[in-house]
Amino acid sequence: MAEKITPRSENYSQWYVDVVVQAQLADYSPVKGCMVIRPRGYALWEAMQQQIDKMFKETGHSNAYFPLLIPESFIRKEAEHVEGFSPELAVVTHAGGEELEEPLVIRPTSETIIWSMYKKWIQSYRDLPILINQWANVLRWEKRTRLFLRTTEFLWQEGHTAHETKEEAEEETLKMLDVYSRFAEEYMAVPVIKGRKTETEKFAGAVDTYAIEAMMQDRKALQAGTSHFLGQNFARAFDVTYQTKEGKLDYVWATSWGMSTRLIGALIMTHSDDRGLIVPPKLAPTEAVIIPIFKNKNKDDVVGYARKLYDGMKDTFRVVFDDDDANSPGWKFAEWEMRGVPVRIEIGPRDMENGKAMLVRRDTGEKESVAIGDVAERVAQLLKDIQQTLYNTARELREKNTHRIDNYEEFKKLYTQDGGFIDTHWCGSAECEAAVKDDTKATIRVLPFEQGDLEGKRCVRCGEPAEYRAIFAKAY
Amino acid sequence: MAEKITPRSENYSQWYVDVVVQAQLADYSPVKGCMVIRPRGYALWEAMQQQIDKMFKETGHSNAYFPLLIPESFIRKEAEHVEGFSPELAVVTHAGGEELEEPLVIRPTSETIIWSMYKKWIQSYRDLPILINQWANVLRWEKRTRLFLRTTEFLWQEGHTAHETKEEAEEETLKMLDVYSRFAEEYMAVPVIKGRKTETEKFAGAVDTYAIEAMMQDRKALQAGTSHFLGQNFARAFDVTYQTKEGKLDYVWATSWGMSTRLIGALIMTHSDDRGLIVPPKLAPTEAVIIPIFKNKNKDDVVGYARKLYDGMKDTFRVVFDDDDANSPGWKFAEWEMRGVPVRIEIGPRDMENGKAMLVRRDTGEKESVAIGDVAERVAQLLKDIQQTLYNTARELREKNTHRIDNYEEFKKLYTQDGGFIDTHWCGSAECEAAVKDDTKATIRVLPFEQGDLEGKRCVRCGEPAEYRAIFAKAY
Repeated sequence: MAEKITPRSENYSQWYVDVVVQAQLADYSPVKGCMVIRPRGYALWEAMQQQIDKMFKETGHSNAYFPLLIPESFIRKEAEHVEGFSPELAVVTHAGGEELEEPLVIRPTSETIIWSMYKKWIQSYRDLPILINQWANVLRWEKRTRLFLRTTEFLWQEGHTAHETKEEAEEETLKMLDVYSRFAEEYMAVPVIKGRKTETEKFAGAVDTYAIEAMMQDRKALQAGTSHFLGQNFARAFDVTYQTKEGKLDYVWATSWGMSTRLIGALIMTHSDDRGLIVPPKLAPTEAVIIPIFKNKNKDDVVGYARKLYDGMKDTFRVVFDDDDANSPGWKFAEWEMRGVPVRIEIGPRDMENGKAMLVRRDTGEKESVAIGDVAERVAQLLKDIQQTLYNTARELREKNTHRIDNYEEFKKLYTQDGGFIDTHWCGSAECEAAVKDDTKATIRVLPFEQGDLEGKRCVRCGEPAEYRAIFAKAY
Repeated sequence: MAEKITPRSENYSQWYVDVVVQAQLADYSPVKGCMVIRPRGYALWEAMQQQIDKMFKETGHSNAYFPLLIPESFIRKEAEHVEGFSPELAVVTHAGGEELEEPLVIRPTSETIIWSMYKKWIQSYRDLPILINQWANVLRWEKRTRLFLRTTEFLWQEGHTAHETKEEAEEETLKMLDVYSRFAEEYMAVPVIKGRKTETEKFAGAVDTYAIEAMMQDRKALQAGTSHFLGQNFARAFDVTYQTKEGKLDYVWATSWGMSTRLIGALIMTHSDDRGLIVPPKLAPTEAVIIPIFKNKNKDDVVGYARKLYDGMKDTFRVVFDDDDANSPGWKFAEWEMRGVPVRIEIGPRDMENGKAMLVRRDTGEKESVAIGDVAERVAQLLKDIQQTLYNTARELREKNTHRIDNYEEFKKLYTQDGGFIDTHWCGSAECEAAVKDDTKATIRVLPFEQGDLEGKRCVRCGEPAEYRAIFAKAY
């Protein structure tokens, strides 16, 4: 609370950094590009982990752990994979006081080390499917970094599954995209568009990459989870075959899927405001804070009255009682707003006299005076309502800033002025995709599953018949 | 279940590896000294994490995350620390395709990077205490490794706290040792001795190291958690001062404490037997398995009857229903014994006719036939009883193999024959400590908090007046 947050209208990037640093979610570290996730930021990550891990387990997955270090030669086994990741690798050349015979890279992702193990574990169809997830840190040497959104080291989960058939692997790929989408919409209150990535944008080593894309408040796109159908690429690279039910040998089919601490960035950028963080209630480490407002003469009475409310609520809600008398009520209001707690409950001497409490919503700032006996029930309603309102507001922002345009001049003009999502059509050529990027800096974020009727539609750039409906935007 | 487990009596080390590998807890990886923690092993880790993380939070700690990579110069800032860890470091010299200006080491522990941040966060007594824990992977280049017990990379938690006073830091150090001890005894069913380490055995950089020590079934000692009072060593190294309530500047006082995936090794080595893993019920991912025993003609009836029991239990217990018909009941019994599930519930046609089920304890193998309506209640009792029995059995083993001896010839003779713990007295000199190690390979595991009456006691080696009661043993 020492410094002021830069308003979004003045400098959106600086606003974002101010919120992250002043709400003490993360901090810069002495290691270039690496951040420290502070307790308040890590509590958000824990809430997210807990929920999505439950969803992974409900869909039949187990957690496991594979080594951090990968022999350099492994990365080279899959042609597209090595090309995609080589520039970003951190390499261990010395250990235990000696130079290593073969350098080890710090995992940028774990397909290669995991498929080297799957080779050992898979002989027959009886060993399939393997449905494993890993919670881990990974490292990609980035030139330009931003707290949470792009850091050299980040925390994530990576699912790696192995299947008998192509159909089963494809089904898994889409099932996990659906888990991400439900998590984003129902828990993070972040509306997303589901779809497929273009060849240019897909994961290095995948046959198909699917993603969910969200719009941030500055109307840029942020990819909030990806799910890859890897075909038999890694099975071939690591020679992982299995005996089929019919007694033949075939390569195993694979998927991988991941989401990361980047989502904390998405959460902040979607909901927060010029007073600081706003956290959707379902993921809020603290749902409500009770602040008694007192002077010396009435302190005991007011604090006692407020504490009774706290005692009644603390088993049902994640609620904090802030009766610290080193800081003024005004300071506390601002502090808890900064931290993004969904509901503030103020109780002063007049509230006490009238048997009431004042409830304040973090999202809209609306206040209401509620009879003390009704507070718990009202808070429960408010939490639900705030969750829904945050989602609706984000969805409205996206709708308002999604431009359905099939004229390239208009696209360029509008995009330069307004940004947002351009919902248009594309012929499918990498040439047009690249030309649009050169002209506007917008890339194809996703080819939505809802393709609509393509009859008569033409590529926004070249005018040839359209193969796809495509969402273009500048991306984080 | 493909291979047989080597009996403990034949080869204890091989028995341990057989249990770990055949119960699919962990596997060797292609990276020297690094293991893969497989889903069944990781499920144990998750159960342990969940419980101890709760205990950390109940004692006021929050989780956070600090970078994996540490500038090499940081490690050198604390003299004893660098000396202790330098031989074990893995070093990143290249990243992003270029040689780094300063090499980065992979954290062997995080004191240095964390105290470089504490310098930034601590100005005044108002910023204290800081009570942070981190769940992370760390890396120490080891020459000889064993699955779980000693691996180059391992998973752990490391607490790092900062305090105003020496007394407060010392209190924290002992409080966390107490958390470890309660966790080991009440959840892992592993009896431990609490005490202090000698100067020789303490953590590199600590003023005092405290530990809990357990006896494995081969009568060797295993350190199952350590808590360090760091004094002002790291505060001085990183120049972390704070303004006291009286307006003076002072260095901050520190603690650190950790436990790791090594505890999974301790769990196995304490309880398991020649048929495989035994897991204490409180940490068992599966508490009970229900196995219907049927032939084709009565399959539907028996499976239906057993499934009703499962449906009635599944909301209260972590229970699995194994009606797979690809494997025989005998194969399943052995398989679930191998996996260490505390209670097996067998239901055959005769059980069904009599309205009963057969319960089998994993620890003692005892069987009892129970009326179907009483199964849930009886299972609950058995789980409690197994938890307690495992603890008692381990405690008896330790008592039986702890030799209270104050004669050095007897010590040497007995130790060579029998091993175990030697509970004796020591003058406090590093010379005697080293001589005993040379003569017997036994080291001082711990100076127990319960020192007893030292009056008239003499050092077992030199005969000088004793300063300490000391437990000597060979250690993992």
